[in-house]
Amino acid sequence: MSQKFDFGMVGLGVMGRNLLYNMADNGFSVIGFDLDAEKGKELENGATPGTTVKGVTTWEEFVSDLATPRKITMLVPAGKPVDSVIESLLPLLEKGDIIIDGGNSHYVDTVRRVKYLEPKGIHFMGMGVSGGESGARRGPSIMPGGDKEAFEVIKPLLEAVSAKVNGDPCTAYMGKDAAGHYVKMVHNGIEYAIMQLISEIYDLLHRGLGVTNDELYEIFKEWNEGELSSFLVEITRDIFKQKDPETGGYLVDYILDKAGAKGTGKWTSQDAMDSGVSIPTIDIAVSLRTISAYKEERAQAAKLYATSHTPLSVDKAEFIKQAGEALFFAVIISYAQGLALLVKASQELSMDIPLKDVVKIWRGGCIIRSTLLEQYYQAYSKNPTLPNILLDEDIAALAKSKVASLREVVAQAAKSSIAAGGLQTALAYFDAYTTDRMPTNLIQAQRDFFGSHTYQRIDKEGTFHTQWGK
Amino acid sequence: MSQKFDFGMVGLGVMGRNLLYNMADNGFSVIGFDLDAEKGKELENGATPGTTVKGVTTWEEFVSDLATPRKITMLVPAGKPVDSVIESLLPLLEKGDIIIDGGNSHYVDTVRRVKYLEPKGIHFMGMGVSGGESGARRGPSIMPGGDKEAFEVIKPLLEAVSAKVNGDPCTAYMGKDAAGHYVKMVHNGIEYAIMQLISEIYDLLHRGLGVTNDELYEIFKEWNEGELSSFLVEITRDIFKQKDPETGGYLVDYILDKAGAKGTGKWTSQDAMDSGVSIPTIDIAVSLRTISAYKEERAQAAKLYATSHTPLSVDKAEFIKQAGEALFFAVIISYAQGLALLVKASQELSMDIPLKDVVKIWRGGCIIRSTLLEQYYQAYSKNPTLPNILLDEDIAALAKSKVASLREVVAQAAKSSIAAGGLQTALAYFDAYTTDRMPTNLIQAQRDFFGSHTYQRIDKEGTFHTQWGK
Repeated sequence: MSQKFDFGMVGLGVMGRNLLYNMADNGFSVIGFDLDAEKGKELENGATPGTTVKGVTTWEEFVSDLATPRKITMLVPAGKPVDSVIESLLPLLEKGDIIIDGGNSHYVDTVRRVKYLEPKGIHFMGMGVSGGESGARRGPSIMPGGDKEAFEVIKPLLEAVSAKVNGDPCTAYMGKDAAGHYVKMVHNGIEYAIMQLISEIYDLLHRGLGVTNDELYEIFKEWNEGELSSFLVEITRDIFKQKDPETGGYLVDYILDKAGAKGTGKWTSQDAMDSGVSIPTIDIAVSLRTISAYKEERAQAAKLYATSHTPLSVDKAEFIKQAGEALFFAVIISYAQGLALLVKASQELSMDIPLKDVVKIWRGGCIIRSTLLEQYYQAYSKNPTLPNILLDEDIAALAKSKVASLREVVAQAAKSSIAAGGLQTALAYFDAYTTDRMPTNLIQAQRDFFGSHTYQRIDKEGTFHTQWGK
Repeated sequence: MSQKFDFGMVGLGVMGRNLLYNMADNGFSVIGFDLDAEKGKELENGATPGTTVKGVTTWEEFVSDLATPRKITMLVPAGKPVDSVIESLLPLLEKGDIIIDGGNSHYVDTVRRVKYLEPKGIHFMGMGVSGGESGARRGPSIMPGGDKEAFEVIKPLLEAVSAKVNGDPCTAYMGKDAAGHYVKMVHNGIEYAIMQLISEIYDLLHRGLGVTNDELYEIFKEWNEGELSSFLVEITRDIFKQKDPETGGYLVDYILDKAGAKGTGKWTSQDAMDSGVSIPTIDIAVSLRTISAYKEERAQAAKLYATSHTPLSVDKAEFIKQAGEALFFAVIISYAQGLALLVKASQELSMDIPLKDVVKIWRGGCIIRSTLLEQYYQAYSKNPTLPNILLDEDIAALAKSKVASLREVVAQAAKSSIAAGGLQTALAYFDAYTTDRMPTNLIQAQRDFFGSHTYQRIDKEGTFHTQWGK
């Protein structure tokens, strides 16, 4: 046994396999571990001819075949499987080896694992990978965080396999400890929000305005060629074109309206609440996926309420234009909410997350990539410490130019019985964030009234309490 | 020392003191513990002449003065203080004694404490108390949960001191383990939502329509005499009348628009996400309080965006009527969300929470008491296992009669730049819950497109995956 491999992968599901092929195509020799010998064979058979790809079934062979310091990534389900892989590897590793968790682990677990492995001399890194199956194969966005020294070791490989935007690799050091997984969690939270927003625009146009799937294809095609250009708009365009071979109809019409979720959106919302950051558009995206699962209750309620939407009474071409601008505005807000969370969490958890690099590497490869992020990158390049991207003057000008359309679309949705929680909360967030006089003075008065929680005043410093109603 | 006291209280803050006076006025002899001798003196001095109230400063005296089985309530801040009181009491107690945590402890902690004390023979109960200071004094709503046997021991006392509605005490057994604290947590989540809704209506009328504080007083007075009759509407009415002695103006105008929060709303939202229940109106109430705290950022954003609301162009009297109906509808929805969470959590945590009794005891004494809850009580009396109160026919008829006003108000808010996230999410929840065709088919198509997450179909059983775009 003479050849040592550059990189190892535990977990040969489609994501792990594709990432290995991507590495191999970039000239790295790679080895994959799976207890199932079939998976190893499959891996080897699917490799590009001339690349060095091997599948093994024992931990011993896997570890001894790797060049030191060993660089081992795992792409296994979050939770216990990650700990189990760590325990299997641990007796076989040497000081200086690097374990990289490339799955969607909860960042709290990642912090725990870093602390567990540090005294043993093993570097543990949390790394977000986004781009789906084809992204993993052709170039994902990669969000590594943790030990900076270990990062420098794997940096050339990550830069080689990641997506590129204007020649820049879509990977960078995301910060200390669990920063990589934290950034990926928020990425997914934003993804939830944007998917929710697109679904509401679809509902308004399709159910509200009677726009056909063919027309929707054309609309999303046009949007994808303009300021809305993004991966999610692009695949939505293609979804409307997809035919169902069995019925000959459009496949989207035959899909049940129950959306699943794997937890990262929920974690984002829960963590934002703990961090004292407001991300209502992500919250309601989580919440409406939840309602979608209550299919039987909804069917019962639909009968009881006999609700039918009121068709929109608007100029069709004009409303489609407004819908596009409303979507764009709400997407601006969704990113803003997620990024504001990153700023706060980075401070609270001392992760030193570089916001500029976050939006830079999100420009390509990942599910929320969009041309808008180029503008965000410019904004953070000018001012890397913006607490909220909405405070950037250029972004402000952009948002201001679109908000009227969102107001109109939200008003129409309300009247037509079409749920538009994502669009609505984007507007509420914007209207609350940009006013220096919220009506929360009344809430604080109520709190002081029934619970003596005290209040501050607008005209002087201090904390006050009143005997209300006396 | 011959006299033994009926009831002990640890923590002589205003809530604890008032609850003791309430007990004493109802003929029970009570003893309060505080390390600060002043507090004990204060307690004794404030008691109604002829009642038996004593203050002590040592744990030994406190415990030995109580009749067995000892019934000890604590009203101390949630978290460590509760554990610390338990540890101080433990060496002095005997098997069969009852410790009742009457504060806003997180239910997870309560479960832990029940398990910790059970093998020691000590009954630990979590008990929600709502009604603020004056409620504690004159009759709160009391939500005890935990050991049923222990509950029977304290039941006569709780019934005596609680508020009454039509002669029925506003207290009942809420279920096993931490059910009392869980019910109180959700009570507070609903409270957040209703306060948020009232503040939005205030903003629309005051800032949007130019309604004065005097007029607001009259409007809320009228509302409180009709279907909106409730504690929170009642105190809001009185807040608009309260003058500021220093300036001679209305006090509410001088209160800073930063609202505080003590965590129960946040816990409700976080727990609902874990339980897979949608409570978006509570979520956004938490979220908008959070934004309110970002006062400096908001001031900066207000300058940058130079937003000024567009005055509402509506018929004033008509809009005020619609605003009242919109508020009522959104309140119906807020309770529905919280109660749906109780149903699910009760199952998941095996707490056996009796929904009928929950709304029964919320009719009086507590912060969210309202005449509407009488209708909810009737609904659960007919069908105690409703998964969602919106599925009751009478509640459905009520909701249907009000929703058009909410649609109008939400549309106006959107156009006038007034954040109305609570009203909007109540509408989005309703519109999503009452349709059997949400646009989540598109979200599931997207998930299958980029992540092979599969989907179900409307026309046949099974799980499917498509090679999209091929």
